[in-house]
Amino acid sequence: MSYNLLKGKKGIIFGALDEKSMAWRTALRCHEEGAQLVLTNAPVALRMGEINKLAELVKAPVIGADVVNMDDLKKLFEESLKHFGGKIDFILHSVGMSLNVRKGKHYTELDYGFNQKTMDISALSLHRVLRTAWDLDALNEWSSVVALTYIAAQRVFPDYSEMADAKALLESITRSFGYHYALKNKTRINTVSQSPTRTTAGSGVKGFDGFITYAEKMSPLGNATADQCADFCAAMFSDLTRMVTMQNLFHDGGFSNTGVSQAVIEQMERGNI
Amino acid sequence: MSYNLLKGKKGIIFGALDEKSMAWRTALRCHEEGAQLVLTNAPVALRMGEINKLAELVKAPVIGADVVNMDDLKKLFEESLKHFGGKIDFILHSVGMSLNVRKGKHYTELDYGFNQKTMDISALSLHRVLRTAWDLDALNEWSSVVALTYIAAQRVFPDYSEMADAKALLESITRSFGYHYALKNKTRINTVSQSPTRTTAGSGVKGFDGFITYAEKMSPLGNATADQCADFCAAMFSDLTRMVTMQNLFHDGGFSNTGVSQAVIEQMERGNI
Amino acid sequence: MSYNLLKGKKGIIFGALDEKSMAWRTALRCHEEGAQLVLTNAPVALRMGEINKLAELVKAPVIGADVVNMDDLKKLFEESLKHFGGKIDFILHSVGMSLNVRKGKHYTELDYGFNQKTMDISALSLHRVLRTAWDLDALNEWSSVVALTYIAAQRVFPDYSEMADAKALLESITRSFGYHYALKNKTRINTVSQSPTRTTAGSGVKGFDGFITYAEKMSPLGNATADQCADFCAAMFSDLTRMVTMQNLFHDGGFSNTGVSQAVIEQMERGNI
Amino acid sequence: MSYNLLKGKKGIIFGALDEKSMAWRTALRCHEEGAQLVLTNAPVALRMGEINKLAELVKAPVIGADVVNMDDLKKLFEESLKHFGGKIDFILHSVGMSLNVRKGKHYTELDYGFNQKTMDISALSLHRVLRTAWDLDALNEWSSVVALTYIAAQRVFPDYSEMADAKALLESITRSFGYHYALKNKTRINTVSQSPTRTTAGSGVKGFDGFITYAEKMSPLGNATADQCADFCAAMFSDLTRMVTMQNLFHDGGFSNTGVSQAVIEQMERGNI
Repeated sequence: MSYNLLKGKKGIIFGALDEKSMAWRTALRCHEEGAQLVLTNAPVALRMGEINKLAELVKAPVIGADVVNMDDLKKLFEESLKHFGGKIDFILHSVGMSLNVRKGKHYTELDYGFNQKTMDISALSLHRVLRTAWDLDALNEWSSVVALTYIAAQRVFPDYSEMADAKALLESITRSFGYHYALKNKTRINTVSQSPTRTTAGSGVKGFDGFITYAEKMSPLGNATADQCADFCAAMFSDLTRMVTMQNLFHDGGFSNTGVSQAVIEQMERGNI
Repeated sequence: MSYNLLKGKKGIIFGALDEKSMAWRTALRCHEEGAQLVLTNAPVALRMGEINKLAELVKAPVIGADVVNMDDLKKLFEESLKHFGGKIDFILHSVGMSLNVRKGKHYTELDYGFNQKTMDISALSLHRVLRTAWDLDALNEWSSVVALTYIAAQRVFPDYSEMADAKALLESITRSFGYHYALKNKTRINTVSQSPTRTTAGSGVKGFDGFITYAEKMSPLGNATADQCADFCAAMFSDLTRMVTMQNLFHDGGFSNTGVSQAVIEQMERGNI
Repeated sequence: MSYNLLKGKKGIIFGALDEKSMAWRTALRCHEEGAQLVLTNAPVALRMGEINKLAELVKAPVIGADVVNMDDLKKLFEESLKHFGGKIDFILHSVGMSLNVRKGKHYTELDYGFNQKTMDISALSLHRVLRTAWDLDALNEWSSVVALTYIAAQRVFPDYSEMADAKALLESITRSFGYHYALKNKTRINTVSQSPTRTTAGSGVKGFDGFITYAEKMSPLGNATADQCADFCAAMFSDLTRMVTMQNLFHDGGFSNTGVSQAVIEQMERGNI
Repeated sequence: MSYNLLKGKKGIIFGALDEKSMAWRTALRCHEEGAQLVLTNAPVALRMGEINKLAELVKAPVIGADVVNMDDLKKLFEESLKHFGGKIDFILHSVGMSLNVRKGKHYTELDYGFNQKTMDISALSLHRVLRTAWDLDALNEWSSVVALTYIAAQRVFPDYSEMADAKALLESITRSFGYHYALKNKTRINTVSQSPTRTTAGSGVKGFDGFITYAEKMSPLGNATADQCADFCAAMFSDLTRMVTMQNLFHDGGFSNTGVSQAVIEQMERGNI
């Protein structure tokens, strides 16, 4: 079902790895809603080749860019402006990576070199993207930026480890840059705090299965899917949400405001036997 | 501009007083988006007669109901179900009243009888509405309820007085009932925390003008208008936001996450001279 | 161990029912720290007679007062001022009661008459107490008021039912009155959000045992005891915390900022077998 | 006035620059309360020589350590353990530095090399300190760690720039490490979010004077002083607050929960003339 909600709008989607990715589903949804797109990801992710399938489906060019490389980002925005023949209306930032998590380093034993990379790729990258757009005056008035985040930025989920800190930093950058971009350009910047989702990226986290079940039982509506996240992002990119900015929006089936659910209590009682 | 976002959906709008009301603007917007509506307000508000203009514009019946009267609410829902020939997809709760504020009673000198009325009309009314719908099984799966609120529920704005407490109670009811209604029916219930708006209701608050200017200067995007609030409510009633529940959503141009703005600091410095 | 932290200070303790009560433990602790006390509770609670044991231990008079009766409260404060021969330095509000919870009424089937009583006794009572003190000018400069609350004010714990709404209201009153009392008198007003505790009052809540175990496993430091709560209240009444006001302070072993603990995940996995 | 609240306790104080520093005042206060101390700061700060005055007053050794250097931190903890002849009971982390702020780089024009240093010194340093203590098993059971922070971690104060992001990261590290240290050792870790204070460090921030006046007028109790912050830290290091962990505690005269004050509104109205 399409509403033409994004007709005439132009957007850049960061982070579509494969068809389970939230960025992938969001690209599809935005295309359905009438948007023109540019897809981008890190060169190493592009080499996996999956993104070309998506590019075909949404009729979008793929422009590689390392999000910690300012030259790459400049090239990405310049080529996008040229491709669109105009400024950009929305950006999805769905980027995160932790070598410490991947390599099973415990939070109390972080490799600080890896940690710096995690912060740079998963959080500072948003600053770099916004600053590149700012310098090139690449965003239209009333444009909308969404970065995907997770509730570990507010509460501890032990296995999420340093990614929690990266998401807290990402959410702070969203507020800080959101203030300045609102004044300059009426641009709004928000994070969407999504339910845990069985994406290829997510499945690297230790204990992810036990955890996703817990979240499902704790959320009165269940976990939000990647397609539902895509729907919500489309709404956030549309003109219907122009005055929402500098917010962290929980898209999580009610998880964040549920202290405990009946289903969790019952499951725990079974565990007592 | 219409996207047919609410095509086929049926909704009840509480609290359209006159054309400045957020409920009024939301009714217009939902109508544009293809929804069928029932309008309701307290008998005393209906006697002002303005609502009939709106009824004509959105082709909706007006059914009077006192929100603290369970018989009235039952009748409202029964007649709505009959009128629609089916269940209800969305509800806007835009209801609030404080005799203590109207009569200029200071927060430290509340009349407790008035206070009880304030809580009943402005907060418990949401429980009464939801419970009536629950008992009649009047809501469709994936239906959406929005109640309008204000950031005074989180932080003190002295002149807002006991209405702050009423809004805190309203937001808690939203979470509490949201949990149960999600499990029963996939219904989602949220509050939208809107910028101060020059409505007829809002203008009753002492010091409202000074305050609205402050909010305008403090919000990087400026204050959200009633029409922008209507846009956002339409998005919240649509199928794009199904997994957002039990949340308080700030629709305020960034006010809530701005500690201080350059504009406020400058204005205060001028006040020093 | 005593530090003489409250030497020379005079306080009123509301809500000491029996020796498990947080108010009881706090009275003992404040007495140890050198404070003079007045104990108060509802006439019906006094008839149980336990409080006289406490009165003897802490050498304090017991003055009955129904917290919803302004005459009772006036008498309580007048007699306290007389007993102390001076103004009051601190107040503990540990008062809550829900007939709907006691009688097993589900949240979706509240008796609204009971509900009004719950709000009046559990939340508005704080306003009534503060307002009585205000009118009699009964509090010293830099005095400190603590009301006990629970995290259900922020997140849903289904069995806690309407008490969640009452606590949300209580916390809002704390902020609202806290603003005015700070300006008038440098008085600070805060809520302490305590772990679930096996008190006589708490044990009336359905499913309380399953729930307290869950909280214990979810809190990295375990649940805070009533004695530990008493310690914390003593710190809040002391001169060391003068600039903390209008806050909700979690005294909960880390529960509030833990998304999930390893212990909960493991228990749930056992429940799968 | 001393309560002997910290009698027998041993603590390390990071960041006492001169007598206006919050760390300096806290060291004095902890000494008065009976604690034994070790003072530490970066070698460059030590060269200013002021800290020796403090060392004399509180009878503590000064051990230089660069907080981003793991060897320095190891040496600091080893020497402290030796000096104390036992494990450590509390730590104050009062460390922050931003070259971008100092050099007047706007938030949209950050030098990313400086930014990385800001994060490393102002936020990651807490991780490094805790991890060093963890590896050496240097903390007693029920020990207490406080890191000083600022409300810019939650809301934008434009001139605070990237330090806001650093504080958000610091608060996340507090929660993350707080979880693990509670399980291991019953150690609690919290941040204290202090009013803006005229310290030597604070005065480097552009527009600091206008801002401190704003905060003073916005806070019902006024801004908290460095001495009051020291009092509160002493309470947080004492045994009275054992079950508070992973929290951000506002010590700010009510600023954080005040939406607007009468004083700010009035000052702004004067600015209109």
